[in-house]
Amino acid sequence: MIIVMRPKTVQSEIEKIKRKMKSLGCEIHESKGQNYHLLGLVGDTSKIDPNQIQANRNVEKLIFVQEPYKKVNRLFHPEDTCISVNDRTIGGDGFSIIAGPCSVESEEQIVGIAKEIKEIGASFLRGGAYKPRTSPYSFQGLMDEGLDLLKTARRETGLPIVTELMSPYLIEKFVEDVDVIQIGARNMQNFDLLKEVGKTNKPILLKRGMSATIEELLMAAEYIMSEGNERIILCERGIRTFEKYTRNTLDISAIPIIKKLSHLPVIVDPSHAAGLWWLVEPLAKAAVAVGADGLMIEVHNDPANALCDGQQSIKPEKLRSLVSSIKDIAKLVGKEIK
Amino acid sequence: MIIVMRPKTVQSEIEKIKRKMKSLGCEIHESKGQNYHLLGLVGDTSKIDPNQIQANRNVEKLIFVQEPYKKVNRLFHPEDTCISVNDRTIGGDGFSIIAGPCSVESEEQIVGIAKEIKEIGASFLRGGAYKPRTSPYSFQGLMDEGLDLLKTARRETGLPIVTELMSPYLIEKFVEDVDVIQIGARNMQNFDLLKEVGKTNKPILLKRGMSATIEELLMAAEYIMSEGNERIILCERGIRTFEKYTRNTLDISAIPIIKKLSHLPVIVDPSHAAGLWWLVEPLAKAAVAVGADGLMIEVHNDPANALCDGQQSIKPEKLRSLVSSIKDIAKLVGKEIK
Amino acid sequence: MIIVMRPKTVQSEIEKIKRKMKSLGCEIHESKGQNYHLLGLVGDTSKIDPNQIQANRNVEKLIFVQEPYKKVNRLFHPEDTCISVNDRTIGGDGFSIIAGPCSVESEEQIVGIAKEIKEIGASFLRGGAYKPRTSPYSFQGLMDEGLDLLKTARRETGLPIVTELMSPYLIEKFVEDVDVIQIGARNMQNFDLLKEVGKTNKPILLKRGMSATIEELLMAAEYIMSEGNERIILCERGIRTFEKYTRNTLDISAIPIIKKLSHLPVIVDPSHAAGLWWLVEPLAKAAVAVGADGLMIEVHNDPANALCDGQQSIKPEKLRSLVSSIKDIAKLVGKEIK
Amino acid sequence: MIIVMRPKTVQSEIEKIKRKMKSLGCEIHESKGQNYHLLGLVGDTSKIDPNQIQANRNVEKLIFVQEPYKKVNRLFHPEDTCISVNDRTIGGDGFSIIAGPCSVESEEQIVGIAKEIKEIGASFLRGGAYKPRTSPYSFQGLMDEGLDLLKTARRETGLPIVTELMSPYLIEKFVEDVDVIQIGARNMQNFDLLKEVGKTNKPILLKRGMSATIEELLMAAEYIMSEGNERIILCERGIRTFEKYTRNTLDISAIPIIKKLSHLPVIVDPSHAAGLWWLVEPLAKAAVAVGADGLMIEVHNDPANALCDGQQSIKPEKLRSLVSSIKDIAKLVGKEIK
Repeated sequence: MIIVMRPKTVQSEIEKIKRKMKSLGCEIHESKGQNYHLLGLVGDTSKIDPNQIQANRNVEKLIFVQEPYKKVNRLFHPEDTCISVNDRTIGGDGFSIIAGPCSVESEEQIVGIAKEIKEIGASFLRGGAYKPRTSPYSFQGLMDEGLDLLKTARRETGLPIVTELMSPYLIEKFVEDVDVIQIGARNMQNFDLLKEVGKTNKPILLKRGMSATIEELLMAAEYIMSEGNERIILCERGIRTFEKYTRNTLDISAIPIIKKLSHLPVIVDPSHAAGLWWLVEPLAKAAVAVGADGLMIEVHNDPANALCDGQQSIKPEKLRSLVSSIKDIAKLVGKEIK
Repeated sequence: MIIVMRPKTVQSEIEKIKRKMKSLGCEIHESKGQNYHLLGLVGDTSKIDPNQIQANRNVEKLIFVQEPYKKVNRLFHPEDTCISVNDRTIGGDGFSIIAGPCSVESEEQIVGIAKEIKEIGASFLRGGAYKPRTSPYSFQGLMDEGLDLLKTARRETGLPIVTELMSPYLIEKFVEDVDVIQIGARNMQNFDLLKEVGKTNKPILLKRGMSATIEELLMAAEYIMSEGNERIILCERGIRTFEKYTRNTLDISAIPIIKKLSHLPVIVDPSHAAGLWWLVEPLAKAAVAVGADGLMIEVHNDPANALCDGQQSIKPEKLRSLVSSIKDIAKLVGKEIK
Repeated sequence: MIIVMRPKTVQSEIEKIKRKMKSLGCEIHESKGQNYHLLGLVGDTSKIDPNQIQANRNVEKLIFVQEPYKKVNRLFHPEDTCISVNDRTIGGDGFSIIAGPCSVESEEQIVGIAKEIKEIGASFLRGGAYKPRTSPYSFQGLMDEGLDLLKTARRETGLPIVTELMSPYLIEKFVEDVDVIQIGARNMQNFDLLKEVGKTNKPILLKRGMSATIEELLMAAEYIMSEGNERIILCERGIRTFEKYTRNTLDISAIPIIKKLSHLPVIVDPSHAAGLWWLVEPLAKAAVAVGADGLMIEVHNDPANALCDGQQSIKPEKLRSLVSSIKDIAKLVGKEIK
Repeated sequence: MIIVMRPKTVQSEIEKIKRKMKSLGCEIHESKGQNYHLLGLVGDTSKIDPNQIQANRNVEKLIFVQEPYKKVNRLFHPEDTCISVNDRTIGGDGFSIIAGPCSVESEEQIVGIAKEIKEIGASFLRGGAYKPRTSPYSFQGLMDEGLDLLKTARRETGLPIVTELMSPYLIEKFVEDVDVIQIGARNMQNFDLLKEVGKTNKPILLKRGMSATIEELLMAAEYIMSEGNERIILCERGIRTFEKYTRNTLDISAIPIIKKLSHLPVIVDPSHAAGLWWLVEPLAKAAVAVGADGLMIEVHNDPANALCDGQQSIKPEKLRSLVSSIKDIAKLVGKEIK
């Protein structure tokens, strides 16, 4: 941490800060330029609250050198983390496809889709039971019944199920029924929920908030890990920008950056990123080529009658061509779909 | 709602959509241009799910003419709504000042600040008991003890208390203890929490999410209102942009826009918008001049030792000069501080 | 400038950089933490090209302590700069109103508007002769004829004229004919044009680019000043964000920030910021209250028949009520309309 | 074009607009809903200026159905356009690599790099002679001498040269000396320059502005085409967002979108998009996989001593591994590097 003092700060004020920092156990490296006076803090800075320093009226700004996250940081954990879910693994040299409808709608629908995507090569079934919707007047999901139908689909196909948790009231139910608990983009900084799922031992699929920086995504993962749960899969799903042709802008660079900063696996959701079904395949190819560990794709047998997000869902037959077109790209980057 | 068909769609597909829309009770106004074919839907479109239409591969896009919110819409409720809290009112020709520290830290601190801000002219006391922090390693608030201290401060000063609710587990406690329940920016689309507070009869201070559009803020308010609670105060607190000098960019235009679109009162939080204490006063002046119904300001007796957000907190003496400088601007725009 | 070395860089590489920096005349303050090794450069760093340092594969990042602008920097020029134009002054305790139509359309139009706005209290006439339009099929301005008509309006009213320069070919003409040369938002980083106007001695109205940071705006002004022309008026006119209700988002905080960082005067263009005529007055009030040195407002006698930007233009009668409503706010912040 | 009238507009005002639109040759399809009254304009709307309609105080908003660009629109030109440059072609089933240093620095440097990249498989040499730099104090390029050195490199290698034009004064020189004229991101809406290069018959490499929408990029191309020059190559180079880890955010979705909307070829510049050399290769792979027609990559023999942008330049040996890794991905998407 480097403290930049306001120009013309009197020496006595600088000494005051120095004394305080020293009393907190830091060593100080001072550097005096023509206009600015810098104090570099070395040692265990963990007891120092940056807010207190920034609040000092003689401090111009505070510069952070070290990343604020620890447990997710690759610096302290150089090997890739792989997450085991039942007999599957996410991360490493495998490439995982999570597919399924936006919402679970009926047994026929979810079981039918599950069978098709399994046969095509997906290894996880996704489907919304409790749905976060922008409007209170939109379909909110089948709720408990939806969860039961997902379990039926799992029984019929063996595919582990991934579904979104919105309320802490349902955590016990999810721990019992679900294989991977998804935290949605809108709840990425619902710190209360992060802490709660951090206390479970379930794999967590953590989606990047639509205006969250990469650092904030990693800090959200740090929240979960700091409670003890280290089984986290990160998911890039598009960020909010000025461009309005797509619903969000897929931040493809986030994949190699997260790989550099953290040891956690990271997948891409091209369906939500674009919001347009015809963009799913090209973005999926880009995601594989750039080095992602998997894809999360919305698949619906009848998009035009889907109860939500039909415009971004693809049909199973389209998933088949997508999987076939990414298979060889995956190989070229040292991954295998499994 | 207007459906724009993809160029060169065959007539039979257009007829299919028309039949479906008619079966849902809509009248259709057709308009055929050189390249595009439009279907305007008139009548009760509430049963139509836009997702289903957009998912149709022959539909180029869907254009919404009417706002998606109803209960918050000024179109159906032309008069300003005023929210009564104990013997105070937010909205109308009054201008309310909500002030207090980021976090409640001790009885001495919160009671001391409460007395000072009351004497200066604030009519509500704010203070965080449960704190949303980006890092799990930052101070998370005094929690229950913080809430108790806020109650003590209220007892001593008579100021109603405003504090943030993060977890549905605490709703009953908040309904009992708190005067205005704050929903923070990061939870603006925590739909579960919105529904829960919508079932209470407490005034809700709803902060705009840092990347939420004005329409999304109004839809979040609609969530609360659709559950029965119509006592909502909206709060602009800055949005996330590319500009990094300030923590967020205060969207000052949002105030007159919200006033036009909705009947709900709207206040401004210049402390969080800027993240810099020396910007609080000029932004507060701008907020008054533009027509806001109030301000929410972070005040701390000792910012340099505040446990959070010290760099954006001002001292009581600074609040005094701020109040004195906005008092006359308020009068010029037909408002009175009370 | 602080160099942060990549973790685990070998000492010999660090020594290499140190030698290079010393050879360029810098003193080095070293600071070695647990994971990072920092090199603080002190002295005349002006001969150091940051690109070269960043390109070194052992450098993690480069941190700038000092602002990159010098001539526009208040640090080296603490007093406010006032810009004289004929017998008017922009900056200081005056508040200037620049008004007029988006495009000059006819003698009757421009002279008529000029007389009205003068009588209402504006001190400068604006009007586009050469227009930057997003579409090549939109009206591109009356060009030379437009400039002649502006001169006629100046002759009739005495109001100095402000108009946009897009091409270096026209600089001589502008220097001769125009009182204030405007550089539009889309040309804020047309460095070639900046250098050319920097060689003139005309006052320059420099508009912030729609996605330019405050620092980039100041660097654009630095370009002009570095060529010798120090008569610059900055103009905030809204930035591009995700919010689509307004054309741009007025960054009201930019005014006090620019005032802190630079000695140059800064005005606000509420017409382009919002793109909606009914937002012009509330935003103008906010601009005055926040401390701007003036306003630039689009006024048209017949907005519905304006050849451009009619939706953001106000009628002279509306300007009259606007001026009357800001007059007293200006007084409260120590400014007088002149 | 659809006109949405303000709620409660009196019928006589609606009739006035209808008469005006009819007088301009439009047919009107009217559609009256519960709250809104719509007027759909059909026929030749090219004589209608949207500004005039939007300026009418009874008009709530104007909705555009058709894209505003014509000559770049794939709707009217369904086949892909390929651009021939000397004996090379950009577009179609070829994949082009444009490589070279940010700035031309010396004969040895540029000729050396040109030879290496040619041998590796690049088919164009890029290099800046006149440089757009954020700071007036940064190296501004070798200018005329740089251009001469590029010509020398072309003579030695046969590689066509691509370099940026900033000033209209130099157009004749560029037409004579250069093979592809680059318009940089900061000049994408320098309409004056667009018109000037539109009058030449040189291939134009048009880079997307850092905050330009895809539609604005296409409108900038339309400017060039409307002057007669139809040889345009579009280039995605990252957009400005809130994420600060990278210099810009590569909008990978823009490639398939531009392919859908326009017939022009589109390439990707991963060097400027990321601003970090180690991201160039993964982003290049993503660009190939998503369907781009080529890459523009900064290559420098000695990045640590490059006079600009060293931190985003890769060495020739790194380009070799990049080309080898994208070669097979290109084949999988039906392209061949040539």
